[in-house]
Amino acid sequence: MNILISEVGPRDGLQNVSSIMPTTAKKAWIDAAFAAGIREIEVGSFVPAKLLPQLADTNEIVSYARQIEGLTVAALVPNSHGARNAINAGTHKITLPLSCSESHSIANLRRTHEQVLAEARSIANMIAELPAKSRPHFEGSLSTAFGCTIEGNVPEDKVIELAEALMEAGCDEVGLADTTGYANPTSVKELIKKIWGAVGQEALTGIHLHNTRGLGLANAYAALEVGLTTFDSSLGGLGGCPFAPGASGNLVTEDLVYMFEAMGISTGIDLESLFSVRRLVQESLPSEEFYGFAPEAGLPLGFSPTTPSLPNNQLAGSRS
Amino acid sequence: MNILISEVGPRDGLQNVSSIMPTTAKKAWIDAAFAAGIREIEVGSFVPAKLLPQLADTNEIVSYARQIEGLTVAALVPNSHGARNAINAGTHKITLPLSCSESHSIANLRRTHEQVLAEARSIANMIAELPAKSRPHFEGSLSTAFGCTIEGNVPEDKVIELAEALMEAGCDEVGLADTTGYANPTSVKELIKKIWGAVGQEALTGIHLHNTRGLGLANAYAALEVGLTTFDSSLGGLGGCPFAPGASGNLVTEDLVYMFEAMGISTGIDLESLFSVRRLVQESLPSEEFYGFAPEAGLPLGFSPTTPSLPNNQLAGSRS
Repeated sequence: MNILISEVGPRDGLQNVSSIMPTTAKKAWIDAAFAAGIREIEVGSFVPAKLLPQLADTNEIVSYARQIEGLTVAALVPNSHGARNAINAGTHKITLPLSCSESHSIANLRRTHEQVLAEARSIANMIAELPAKSRPHFEGSLSTAFGCTIEGNVPEDKVIELAEALMEAGCDEVGLADTTGYANPTSVKELIKKIWGAVGQEALTGIHLHNTRGLGLANAYAALEVGLTTFDSSLGGLGGCPFAPGASGNLVTEDLVYMFEAMGISTGIDLESLFSVRRLVQESLPSEEFYGFAPEAGLPLGFSPTTPSLPNNQLAGSRS
Repeated sequence: MNILISEVGPRDGLQNVSSIMPTTAKKAWIDAAFAAGIREIEVGSFVPAKLLPQLADTNEIVSYARQIEGLTVAALVPNSHGARNAINAGTHKITLPLSCSESHSIANLRRTHEQVLAEARSIANMIAELPAKSRPHFEGSLSTAFGCTIEGNVPEDKVIELAEALMEAGCDEVGLADTTGYANPTSVKELIKKIWGAVGQEALTGIHLHNTRGLGLANAYAALEVGLTTFDSSLGGLGGCPFAPGASGNLVTEDLVYMFEAMGISTGIDLESLFSVRRLVQESLPSEEFYGFAPEAGLPLGFSPTTPSLPNNQLAGSRS
């Protein structure tokens, strides 16, 4: 069984730290992550630079990352205007977040559910007009799917209704996001199964988890057991959602990869190289806190990963 | 489904911190933990005071804790001499650790496997001579069961052989301990099933997990799924094993209880009261680091635990 780790640090991580990482450091991060075996990276967000100055260079980063053969370049878009820019830059995968809690949707995107769904339809139409080989993969992300810091409980029926609406609007896929860190292994399994029942198993393959209350890896394991195959995570656990107070802490890529590799599930990622990426990025963000246990403790004595280690020199230059 | 959280902080936690907690503070911790709903506490270790001055008052603590009706008072013993003292003090449950890695056994207890098994036989005989109602529950704990920082891999066959040997020596039960933080969800499930196959399901009900590489809760969830019902954990994640370098970090009681309660599995423990216990113990150990995510993030908005909240005044005085 192969699973895909989608590294969201350059978008979700950098969006939520006060430091502004230089463009050259972002490129070095993407290069090193790819060399370590990461095959999908959410590199930025197509939002106005005045809203998120940390991501103002998204256009340049997408153009750069696209040159790395074998890497899927993903980006977030808040609306059809952002989607057009993402498509023009050559983004492979674009994600439109739809917050299942309407209060959170209004606070985060300043749009009601119906307004976000209208953007989804507009983006789907825009993509449909492109030549087939230029069409990006279009995901509608169900954020706050497990609860909201403004509304509290988010009914499963609401999440399912929105999953159906996103697919009807023309998304290729929906994603499930525990924006607030409210999920637990039981709710993860139940919600995945219910969404599959509504939109089909091929329409939901990935999950975005937070570690707010320490349950990130347990939830990832639960999602894996049900059969999800794509997992968002952030190097060092950087980031979270700035509009959900107290909901800091993305799933830590290093710990997630360690868990899967220890379980004998191939990620294609070399752990020691990934720890080198962590050190590289730490140098660029000296004032930010990096989370994660495995990189601090190191690998167990005699550890045999599923993914073979890279030769030492392979991390240096990987650009095609 | 009800599960038992066995709080090991007063033994495993305090054994591994440099601070020596005053006896009165330990008693206050035990009282508060019981009031929050904890029903089993490993309160100390019957070892020479010069080896572990932090636990020199174990005899007094056991005598004190025994007066709390409904609380199971557990203690660690390194040998039959310690077991005799534990029995004389009135300990309800005594645990003899047997390290599955013989190198670790020699480093930790200065005894070979055969020597520890001889102690187990001697303790079992001592217990058999007691009147039935005075007999403590006797557990042999399989430590370093998932790997060792000295030997690396510990073969499953060795763990199973030692589980059988401990039961033959007269233990009532064996426990499984990931002393070094090497376990993962797959190895947890596989090893439990194999030990059950050898000694029967009723002879293994509990697990002691560490969070060294962040997998503590994922491993606990895996153990729960297989059917274990007793989970060791330590308030604030205090402690670990001082003889296994780099293997710091017990499972955090607060996060573990949060996970189970969020999943709808009753622990009998009131989370807000448990967070109060954390603050109480932090006051007594101001120089120690406390781990855990749930107590820092707080409970989700609208959170409905399985265990009903206690009235505010109930935490104050619970002694019978």
